Amino acid sequence: MKFCRKPVPSRSRYAVEHPQLCYRQFGHEDRCAEFPYLASLSAVAPKVASKIKRDSIMTTGAAWASDDAGPNRILRWVMLMSDETLERVHGIPMAALSPIIQAKLREKAATYEDCMSVARRLTWSAYGMLNAPAPDERTRAYLESEFGAISQGATVCLVCRGQLDFDDFARARRGKAVLETAHAEPRAHNADNVGFCHRPCNIAQGDKSLNEFYDWIESILAKVRGRR
Amino acid sequence: MKFCRKPVPSRSRYAVEHPQLCYRQFGHEDRCAEFPYLASLSAVAPKVASKIKRDSIMTTGAAWASDDAGPNRILRWVMLMSDETLERVHGIPMAALSPIIQAKLREKAATYEDCMSVARRLTWSAYGMLNAPAPDERTRAYLESEFGAISQGATVCLVCRGQLDFDDFARARRGKAVLETAHAEPRAHNADNVGFCHRPCNIAQGDKSLNEFYDWIESILAKVRGRR
Repeated sequence: MKFCRKPVPSRSRYAVEHPQLCYRQFGHEDRCAEFPYLASLSAVAPKVASKIKRDSIMTTGAAWASDDAGPNRILRWVMLMSDETLERVHGIPMAALSPIIQAKLREKAATYEDCMSVARRLTWSAYGMLNAPAPDERTRAYLESEFGAISQGATVCLVCRGQLDFDDFARARRGKAVLETAHAEPRAHNADNVGFCHRPCNIAQGDKSLNEFYDWIESILAKVRGRR
Repeated sequence: MKFCRKPVPSRSRYAVEHPQLCYRQFGHEDRCAEFPYLASLSAVAPKVASKIKRDSIMTTGAAWASDDAGPNRILRWVMLMSDETLERVHGIPMAALSPIIQAKLREKAATYEDCMSVARRLTWSAYGMLNAPAPDERTRAYLESEFGAISQGATVCLVCRGQLDFDDFARARRGKAVLETAHAEPRAHNADNVGFCHRPCNIAQGDKSLNEFYDWIESILAKVRGRR
């Protein structure tokens, strides 16, 4: 699909360097919108729509309660800017943060285009979950043109490949969401590399790539249960 | 081994209900000591000795920075006391904590005896690591009488069974210790159930028992790589 890509109004302080764009189909006649495909979901599951948007565009915060923690959540494409620009233009003193925090922030960097592709992909994946609501026809056509047919029940955990249940978006365990967003390669944030997963699966994968994770658990089983 | 078990002086505010005891061999002639087998290790690797003591007797803190977080680290056997005693005698308002925090604290409860057995076991395990210092002869005899021969290089990660390196106690990755204490059954804190492990292994195991963890990763591999 060719997108409209006209700049949309933004309240972001970073919009001067990185304008946000319209992702309706090129040639559309209604008002421009950055996340047009999330409107249908927002109407029935606003928290899920917010989560998709947040996970797509924001760095995710570790438990950064310390003084040198820096910004906990920030737009991923802002983390592509140089230390100098971040400090001078936006007052974020990157160089003053601990090397660990700097690395955590920088590794979440992604282009605006990639973040937008992640949001579309996650929306498509959510609609493919068991018990998911149905999208309106325009949204369905929009998402299916990029990712193929939406088939309720087809979406599986990126890590364990178990079927995911849309109702789990509303569930929590010990105060933590049951479903999270995972990356096959932890440092690549784009549509081909993301999916939903169970929280314990995401935690177990840690900072390994999916293939590294599978190799690792295979080596554990080989030792523990003596099989290859 | 039969232990002396005379009460030792303690600065703990909980010592009235739970006296701390001497764990030298029964009939010893020198001064009583609660952790006599840690003296030799303390002389060469004081941080490791402290870690063993801490992991054995204290609840481990989650990221409890919130107002209702309660005590972050507390003696495990104190968590066996009733809410009423904790509040009235020790000023810990358990009932006022969130149910999640209460559960996190309570599930770390263990008897004093079990905690002491964990400390002995972990000390023995540490001495069995690659590159571990050698214990003095009295300590060796003491630990070997309970757990068998100390063989340098024999200690493996409780989870992945990979060989553990004593030097990793001094290493950290992103500010986190490389080696942690793990439990085969997450809620059982006793000598038969604990061991050292790699931090990513501990995290991957999560709140599953070791057997549940192995079954789980086996089921993942069966789906992902089509084998059983």
